[in-house]
Amino acid sequence: MRNTAIETEVLAFDIFGTVVDWHGSIAREIRAAHPAVDADAFALAWRAGYQPAMHRVMAGELPWTLIDDLHRMILDEVVVQFGLTHLDETARADLNRVWHRLDPWPDVVQGLTRLKKRFVLCTLSNGNLNLLTRLSKRAALPWDCILSAEVFRAYKPDPRTYLGVAQTFDVLPEQVMLVAAHHNDLEGARACGLQTAYIERPLELGARNPKDVTPHLANDMHARDLLDLAQQLGC
Amino acid sequence: MRNTAIETEVLAFDIFGTVVDWHGSIAREIRAAHPAVDADAFALAWRAGYQPAMHRVMAGELPWTLIDDLHRMILDEVVVQFGLTHLDETARADLNRVWHRLDPWPDVVQGLTRLKKRFVLCTLSNGNLNLLTRLSKRAALPWDCILSAEVFRAYKPDPRTYLGVAQTFDVLPEQVMLVAAHHNDLEGARACGLQTAYIERPLELGARNPKDVTPHLANDMHARDLLDLAQQLGC
Repeated sequence: MRNTAIETEVLAFDIFGTVVDWHGSIAREIRAAHPAVDADAFALAWRAGYQPAMHRVMAGELPWTLIDDLHRMILDEVVVQFGLTHLDETARADLNRVWHRLDPWPDVVQGLTRLKKRFVLCTLSNGNLNLLTRLSKRAALPWDCILSAEVFRAYKPDPRTYLGVAQTFDVLPEQVMLVAAHHNDLEGARACGLQTAYIERPLELGARNPKDVTPHLANDMHARDLLDLAQQLGC
Repeated sequence: MRNTAIETEVLAFDIFGTVVDWHGSIAREIRAAHPAVDADAFALAWRAGYQPAMHRVMAGELPWTLIDDLHRMILDEVVVQFGLTHLDETARADLNRVWHRLDPWPDVVQGLTRLKKRFVLCTLSNGNLNLLTRLSKRAALPWDCILSAEVFRAYKPDPRTYLGVAQTFDVLPEQVMLVAAHHNDLEGARACGLQTAYIERPLELGARNPKDVTPHLANDMHARDLLDLAQQLGC
């Protein structure tokens, strides 16, 4: 059991998959523009390049790189794989900005609005500030502050990101709760002393690939979605 | 004349004096808590320590320091000057957080709300992220993103701050407009190629010290307040 005398002040949210439906949003755009392409597989392939690309940066193989630029590097490989090499520079740049136009899950705006009354809400995403700002503006996400790997110059699960949130807001690590749909992210946060809330997003990888959303007991909270989280936190 | 073909995308706002009334807010708290103190002079003295303190950091005399900590260093001198040395650690820490509770000028929330429909709105303040976030949450300021000297590790008018806004949002410097009530800030921005909007805040230094708000022709825009700015920008 946590020491309940120490009050939670800040909720830090993972974005891709937790707050926005990257798979559905990308698949919809691909399906509309390129009906012959397997849009579901395209979305998964693009996202699959993400962890290895960040790993190359953190290993020092690539210099510090914003996620917008990593997404573009990966896209240039994915178009080969899916027979879209005819896309020119303008088309690729526009397609890459699909990450700025990802739709939130249906519970998000209302859930954040309720949580905002009681907590400081920030993003903690590997996405860069521009991506997070444009995405949040378009979807009307009511953050108090947008924090990003870009601010800490380290990607999650580097401890500098989780501890960076506590330092930024001048609170103890246990006064911050990471809200995420991914156990490795929550494990990284927990190792730094943050509280953790797991959010079920069974369709994150699309309807063809349902995710196992069984509760892990190590997390402080387990919620169906952000409305359920708000409910459990008494908001 | 500016090239009007290049569209303004981002409005970056100075905060202390431009968006919030630091003088009035501090004077009110001091007057309420310490009626014997000249609250007007106290507010001016505290603020007067700000530029020299930042200068010491930028000259390398002090390490990189958040504004919350500079404010506290200055406060510890100002309490001596005003006979408040009896204030203990808790009282000083609380008083220092008055900078997190500054009230916005009366036009601000409505003005920003109108401007937000058309532009990306961010802060560009020497205040640290925690200060800006807490202040903005309390006053319900609808930023799309909070940027700070803390992100760029340089205080205005260092070019890294102004150019940092353009780089962060992946736009040209001339697609960013700095909105501020201080000509030195606007000059710094202009030297980096940003557009500039001067906001009249004749009472920034209190009613006893009215500010000269005569237009400077070098600025792209001159507005009475943020409602007037919104009006002039067609929002």
